[in-house]
Amino acid sequence: MTQTQRFKITIEYDGTPYVGWQRQPGLPSVQGEIEAAIKSFCRQDTEVYGSGRTDAGVHALGQVAHFDLNLPLPIALDDPQKGSYQVTRALNHFLRDHPIVILKTELVDQEFHARFSAKSRSYIYKLVSRHQPLSLDRNRAAYTWESLNLNDMQEGAKHLIGRHDFTSFRASACQSKSPIKTLDNITISQDGDLFTFRLQAPSFLHHQVRNIVGTLMLVGSGKWQPIDVKRALEQKNRKSGGPTADASGLYFHTIVF
Amino acid sequence: MTQTQRFKITIEYDGTPYVGWQRQPGLPSVQGEIEAAIKSFCRQDTEVYGSGRTDAGVHALGQVAHFDLNLPLPIALDDPQKGSYQVTRALNHFLRDHPIVILKTELVDQEFHARFSAKSRSYIYKLVSRHQPLSLDRNRAAYTWESLNLNDMQEGAKHLIGRHDFTSFRASACQSKSPIKTLDNITISQDGDLFTFRLQAPSFLHHQVRNIVGTLMLVGSGKWQPIDVKRALEQKNRKSGGPTADASGLYFHTIVF
Repeated sequence: MTQTQRFKITIEYDGTPYVGWQRQPGLPSVQGEIEAAIKSFCRQDTEVYGSGRTDAGVHALGQVAHFDLNLPLPIALDDPQKGSYQVTRALNHFLRDHPIVILKTELVDQEFHARFSAKSRSYIYKLVSRHQPLSLDRNRAAYTWESLNLNDMQEGAKHLIGRHDFTSFRASACQSKSPIKTLDNITISQDGDLFTFRLQAPSFLHHQVRNIVGTLMLVGSGKWQPIDVKRALEQKNRKSGGPTADASGLYFHTIVF
Repeated sequence: MTQTQRFKITIEYDGTPYVGWQRQPGLPSVQGEIEAAIKSFCRQDTEVYGSGRTDAGVHALGQVAHFDLNLPLPIALDDPQKGSYQVTRALNHFLRDHPIVILKTELVDQEFHARFSAKSRSYIYKLVSRHQPLSLDRNRAAYTWESLNLNDMQEGAKHLIGRHDFTSFRASACQSKSPIKTLDNITISQDGDLFTFRLQAPSFLHHQVRNIVGTLMLVGSGKWQPIDVKRALEQKNRKSGGPTADASGLYFHTIVF
């Protein structure tokens, strides 16, 4: 007599060596490595559903996913009080040769779905502006040799907050039914030569964050005026938006359920 | 008619793929890669002298080195006012496939010596304490699953400040004439699960920082009392000190001349 249990996992990963979150035959993916670790752990084939797909080279600090297992007995879960982290530790053991770490494992109801139950998602984007290329931060942040004006980028970003048709910031391959999304917030901070962009929304279009950052870089370097961001948005044409910023600066940060 | 010019360079690198700073025949070293880049740049064999040798896996944020070139004409140097970064950019061009970046190039007098002119050096050590192994910070910080008490480590560290015989914290292979060194300062800060140690001294013994951190980890985890650091110091015996902390958390930070 077994019962189906649904697990929610929170995941941190370095996206550099992967084709992205999504499993692709014969290619290394985050989803595929986690499914392989589950199989090694309990000999069951299961599909792992993520809250969002990350592209090749994109990282995660708090990706969330769920999967089902058929288990003869209730399984011991994370219990910090008892120092019990069995499932998390078992999965991390099998993931030890990969830059993928399970931060937390929880038992959830069958109604929980990592993608459809998510109410809000946030991304951060790290961009270093300096004269020299990166060494230690290579593949951990994007890089530009151009000087960037923080205030101008902040002013340009304000035009994107709210409910808009984001066609100008949407990848041509985007599969979303509608280009209309609500951007709850976007903040930009500077610490020395590091600029950090934080974006929050119920959901995002494909490449939306990277296209917004690429556009704001045009503003920061003085090629565009802040008001040009509003014009690009209103033109509802991908050709009116700025270029797609590099994947290496993007981190899928938090998902709220 | 040529003249000898001495160059001072400031270097940032990821030490992960190298056997260390020092050139070794047939093995990848930071010194060796920089010498190769100089040769590619101006076809001259020259020796690059560093302010300090870093071990395998140890990083640098501001390593300093010097080298001499025989040049027919004065060479264009970094001039931020003119946007002129010729030497820095040329070297970084030839280092582009390596996680080594020249931050700055300066012309200096023949009296300048990266090692012997240095008045003060500082290191930082990054240590993450959490239940899960590292993904994005792998090879960028050391890791322990143990919980660490910041106050206890700070109290233990105080016993090391000042002029002492640091035999208990000195690698057996250390080539320094004397084990007596002056530790000007050591501070430890905590930001979530990241502990950052900062140490400053005119000079350090081999493995001194890593042996100090390894010892303070014994204090932080409760195996030692803070006062045991004083006892270890006074015993002047390497066996009385704690273990050598992992290389991946160590960064050669700043050199003051």
